[in-house]
Amino acid sequence: MEKVNLTEKLSLFSELWSPKAVGAVNDFHVKLVKLRGEFVWHSHEVEDELFLVLAGTLRMQLRDRELTVAPGEFVIVPHGTEHRPVADAEVHVLLLEPNSTVNTGNAGGERTREVEWI
Amino acid sequence: MEKVNLTEKLSLFSELWSPKAVGAVNDFHVKLVKLRGEFVWHSHEVEDELFLVLAGTLRMQLRDRELTVAPGEFVIVPHGTEHRPVADAEVHVLLLEPNSTVNTGNAGGERTREVEWI
Repeated sequence: MEKVNLTEKLSLFSELWSPKAVGAVNDFHVKLVKLRGEFVWHSHEVEDELFLVLAGTLRMQLRDRELTVAPGEFVIVPHGTEHRPVADAEVHVLLLEPNSTVNTGNAGGERTREVEWI
Repeated sequence: MEKVNLTEKLSLFSELWSPKAVGAVNDFHVKLVKLRGEFVWHSHEVEDELFLVLAGTLRMQLRDRELTVAPGEFVIVPHGTEHRPVADAEVHVLLLEPNSTVNTGNAGGERTREVEWI
């Protein structure tokens, strides 16, 4: 058991839209991800997904509205809810979700990424 | 679904050692807690427990060593591991743990608290 420093971990990668695992809490994973631009619309059949913004401003698009999430704020997207994260400038996010979660959810496709531990 | 601002939520209570729930991610809870002083030695039979420090410096005592956890750092205490959080000055922590977690774990006793939603 060692402590994890978020800034140190964020310095280890620059790849966008590719969540990196930094912790496991029972069957949940803590991940860090860097975002810039628009992602794909998708939902997760069973997994809720928490986005805690560490830096930058995240626009979480839902089908009927958009939430603006600033550093020190989080949003939990319930399973089954279509969402699309958008980042006009680079955003750093801590994700908390079941370890079964795939980044593109039900959409799949070329933006799907394997989760790597850092 | 609404975003949650951690600073706003922290302003809603001053009670020490009494975790407040601010989010549910499947069967996990996100909680905020304010610590000052020493807690009781305890472990959790099945639940791992993540402590992300938001303000102050947390001393996480283990039976064989102590981890010093600063803002922007987290530690995950695995289930079955005896631990005692100590805060020389007030510390604000975001907890992430299964919703079955009781703050005093196997120790029980007078410092056990029901989790209230804020």
